Amino acid sequence: MTVATTSRAATLERAVQAIGERSYWSAFPEHPKAYGEDAPGAGEEAFNDLLGEPFAIDGASGDFIDVAETSPFGIELGITYPASDVDTVIAAAANAMGPWGRLSVDKRADVCIEILETLSDASFQMAHAVMHTTGQSFLMAFQAGGPHALDRALEAVAYTYREIKRLPEPLTWEKPQGSRDPLVIEKSWITRPRGVAVLIGVSTFPTWNGYPGIFASLAAGNPVIVKPHPATILPLALLVRIARTVLTERGLDPNIVQLVVDTPDAPVAKELVMRDEIGIVDYTGGSAFGRWLEQNATHAEVYTEKAGVNSVILDSAADLGAVFRNLSVSMTMYSGQMCTTPQNIFIPETGVDVAGEIVSYEDAAAGFTSAIGALLGDDARAAAILGAIKGTDALVRLKDAAQLGTVLLESREVDNEEFPDAVVRTPVVVEVDGNSGLFANEMFGPIIFVVRTASTDESIRLAKESARANGAITWLAYTDSDQIRDAIIDAAVDAGVSIAFNLTGGLFVNQSAAYSDFHVTGGNPAGNASLTDPAFVARRFVTIGVRTEP
Amino acid sequence: MTVATTSRAATLERAVQAIGERSYWSAFPEHPKAYGEDAPGAGEEAFNDLLGEPFAIDGASGDFIDVAETSPFGIELGITYPASDVDTVIAAAANAMGPWGRLSVDKRADVCIEILETLSDASFQMAHAVMHTTGQSFLMAFQAGGPHALDRALEAVAYTYREIKRLPEPLTWEKPQGSRDPLVIEKSWITRPRGVAVLIGVSTFPTWNGYPGIFASLAAGNPVIVKPHPATILPLALLVRIARTVLTERGLDPNIVQLVVDTPDAPVAKELVMRDEIGIVDYTGGSAFGRWLEQNATHAEVYTEKAGVNSVILDSAADLGAVFRNLSVSMTMYSGQMCTTPQNIFIPETGVDVAGEIVSYEDAAAGFTSAIGALLGDDARAAAILGAIKGTDALVRLKDAAQLGTVLLESREVDNEEFPDAVVRTPVVVEVDGNSGLFANEMFGPIIFVVRTASTDESIRLAKESARANGAITWLAYTDSDQIRDAIIDAAVDAGVSIAFNLTGGLFVNQSAAYSDFHVTGGNPAGNASLTDPAFVARRFVTIGVRTEP
Repeated sequence: MTVATTSRAATLERAVQAIGERSYWSAFPEHPKAYGEDAPGAGEEAFNDLLGEPFAIDGASGDFIDVAETSPFGIELGITYPASDVDTVIAAAANAMGPWGRLSVDKRADVCIEILETLSDASFQMAHAVMHTTGQSFLMAFQAGGPHALDRALEAVAYTYREIKRLPEPLTWEKPQGSRDPLVIEKSWITRPRGVAVLIGVSTFPTWNGYPGIFASLAAGNPVIVKPHPATILPLALLVRIARTVLTERGLDPNIVQLVVDTPDAPVAKELVMRDEIGIVDYTGGSAFGRWLEQNATHAEVYTEKAGVNSVILDSAADLGAVFRNLSVSMTMYSGQMCTTPQNIFIPETGVDVAGEIVSYEDAAAGFTSAIGALLGDDARAAAILGAIKGTDALVRLKDAAQLGTVLLESREVDNEEFPDAVVRTPVVVEVDGNSGLFANEMFGPIIFVVRTASTDESIRLAKESARANGAITWLAYTDSDQIRDAIIDAAVDAGVSIAFNLTGGLFVNQSAAYSDFHVTGGNPAGNASLTDPAFVARRFVTIGVRTEP
Repeated sequence: MTVATTSRAATLERAVQAIGERSYWSAFPEHPKAYGEDAPGAGEEAFNDLLGEPFAIDGASGDFIDVAETSPFGIELGITYPASDVDTVIAAAANAMGPWGRLSVDKRADVCIEILETLSDASFQMAHAVMHTTGQSFLMAFQAGGPHALDRALEAVAYTYREIKRLPEPLTWEKPQGSRDPLVIEKSWITRPRGVAVLIGVSTFPTWNGYPGIFASLAAGNPVIVKPHPATILPLALLVRIARTVLTERGLDPNIVQLVVDTPDAPVAKELVMRDEIGIVDYTGGSAFGRWLEQNATHAEVYTEKAGVNSVILDSAADLGAVFRNLSVSMTMYSGQMCTTPQNIFIPETGVDVAGEIVSYEDAAAGFTSAIGALLGDDARAAAILGAIKGTDALVRLKDAAQLGTVLLESREVDNEEFPDAVVRTPVVVEVDGNSGLFANEMFGPIIFVVRTASTDESIRLAKESARANGAITWLAYTDSDQIRDAIIDAAVDAGVSIAFNLTGGLFVNQSAAYSDFHVTGGNPAGNASLTDPAFVARRFVTIGVRTEP
């Protein structure tokens, strides 16, 4: 145990270094092979054992409820979850807060990292849980749902730890009084948790989007009530069970982390967050409920990631083939169901300068479309890239989008050999005019707009307007011109959107690296869940000053 | 100029050191004599020159409006201020934001510090302006309105500077890819202002409470619209004029700082803050409007200092005389019109242990009351301590309070020889029972409750309940017992109130030291204006990531 604590302290120290430097680092291996030969099979078995059974949690109520959890891959989940009651859960959380909040941040961080390590050991089980609830391909579910999410969680612990540790040790404050004796006061500072935290999970990336808020709150001393999305429960239920096991083994109150499961027919999020005891709400999901939280849960600190319309600005490039290879992946992986997926590609009708030669708008649009067609031409490869579609709304949008302009590439159904009931569609590529405004709202799912603009200036303006009006998390631009690069950076700054340039290699704009890339900026309606920066953690605790006359 | 910039950079560096160490430091001398022999006369003359005249501001509209500004010392102010129009002011601020936000934080901090230095040169003029609008005694107006406010402002600049400077310089991010070439991405980060900031001033400490938000916003790149309290305009009008002069001399847009003056009949704060362009609101004042802001200005970051009920817990002491000497000053200075003034003193009916002997409740209450009576017995000294009463509401409360319990000491009118029309009252001391709950709301002004409790445990419980229900900024406790000290600290932590122990010397609980003491904790309904900590500044800017494939 001592050795392990030392190792966890070293991990924390390294994470604190990483958030300061922001260069590459990771604590959790993203290559499945790093977990040993037996891990894949054991993890799959552990997942299969969960199917069709009540999901037992020590200390939770003995009743179980049927839920609306679904698998986009079409398998029957059939898991029931402990029934809970808002009053009981909040009372238990409030009760757990005192002792947890009074532990040192070192101790709390140590517990948090032990939870993360235990989750890491369960990475294969978690991968299947994420895959079968979200529709992500196995590799994405493994990486984004496991190690990448754990890195984001550790990052949140490191930020919280660093903020609390910035307070000085107790000191003697001595103010000169001219010829008289100085004023001498002993001073110290105590931090305490803000209040019970609620995490409202998302259906697509429950762990990656959920862990940072959960672990920042925990490290700051706040008990956390985890309320998963009603259609994607299992991944966060696993987190809660593992967290409670670690807490119990440490002799701590397991109710520091609790699960509340609800159904679309009887949602509990509003009731939960509007209780006086709630001090923090973390939310990822649609804009309407995000705005409701921001406008109504004003007694709590609210961190949100809502919808966004991400853009690609195509101005000029050295190699258009390389551009389209990169874009065809980033715009199709997981069927556009990432909050960082580009939806719109703006191409000027004056064409694209490619190494000094102009490629016409039509040829550029055709090249982009055929790159997507080629990438997804083979069903096996398409299924691996696209994953499956979560929820039926995206299918409705897919149909609607085709009516908005000229269809450059039709969506088609893709067979998934392993999971014949999987819902898999290639994206529709629709051409619309820059003046139409039809692309300015988020159309979450496998929908891509090629937007014909008068010029790159207009492309920039349209990307900026849609980001300011409807939010955006990422932009990707291709240009060889320093002047245009500067103009795009200016627009990105105004629009509050992070920007990537000229990605043609192995990095995709969708990817956001822990310890290095900030997520949502807070500068537009997409929300403020930076995952993580000082603003994401600084209000999760309160500082009390103690002054004593000696 | 170069020399001055270097000196300002050194000042900033020293301030950054101070907020890290939190030991005593000050950049602006609090002793009037430090400003030279001519300063007092010149400052008074500069103040007198303002009286009865339009307060001209370069670049403001040429129209002036009559206002409801009043002097508690009874002098005729008769100053008119530039009329303004919300649309015009917001447009000018939005227009100023781009270039100001794009300056480096070093440049912005340098400008901020030059404004502070120019304000410091005007400290005597400001002292008269603060005195005659707020009712503070001259010395308090000089110190709290001048150097102490300037230190708080510099502290806010230092926090903002430190936060923005935590971002690393541009770097190359390199992620290993096993046997393949690593992923290499150039990364940099750009901060931008959140949006136009609005400062809504308070009538009692317009500069001390106003500067931190103003200067944190400015340092982060946000233009600031300053809307003073309709009854206390001049001090913040002086700030705006000086800031604009410095900005203009630097070749910058003076509309980075603008003044909006309103009247009680035509208030503009709601219209102002609800505009989309507003990203930040700083507010000090009554709870009702503070809550309205928190619940309605949800598009902006809102920092508030609202009402609070501060408590003294008297358990045991070595020297009761010394206790009462300290308390009689802290509970009467500026007639209880400080947000940190204790209102309630809880004394157990079982008496107070004084160096091993029990002093009965009655004797303790009488000793406290007579210490106040003695301190304020002489009109000249009373006038110097009490200052004058701002607004008529406090006089109504003073009358009402006497009906709530047994009056231990009646309020009386005090003559101020220099200003015969000054409104000066000694505080009423009213005894109420712990069970009555009559002391649990803020009664701002010269009102003191002696609360008779069953025990120190009950004193602690009542102080905690009133803080949690109605807010509190400071507690002061007297105890020789480590066990009771721990219980009080526990309660203070739960209640989110900073706590001082056993003050009998030259420090009064009302005083909050820049660079060392946090102000409002955010842990109870008194608000969250810490003035200053990282949470107070971290959301005043937005960080945009720029990634480039090399």
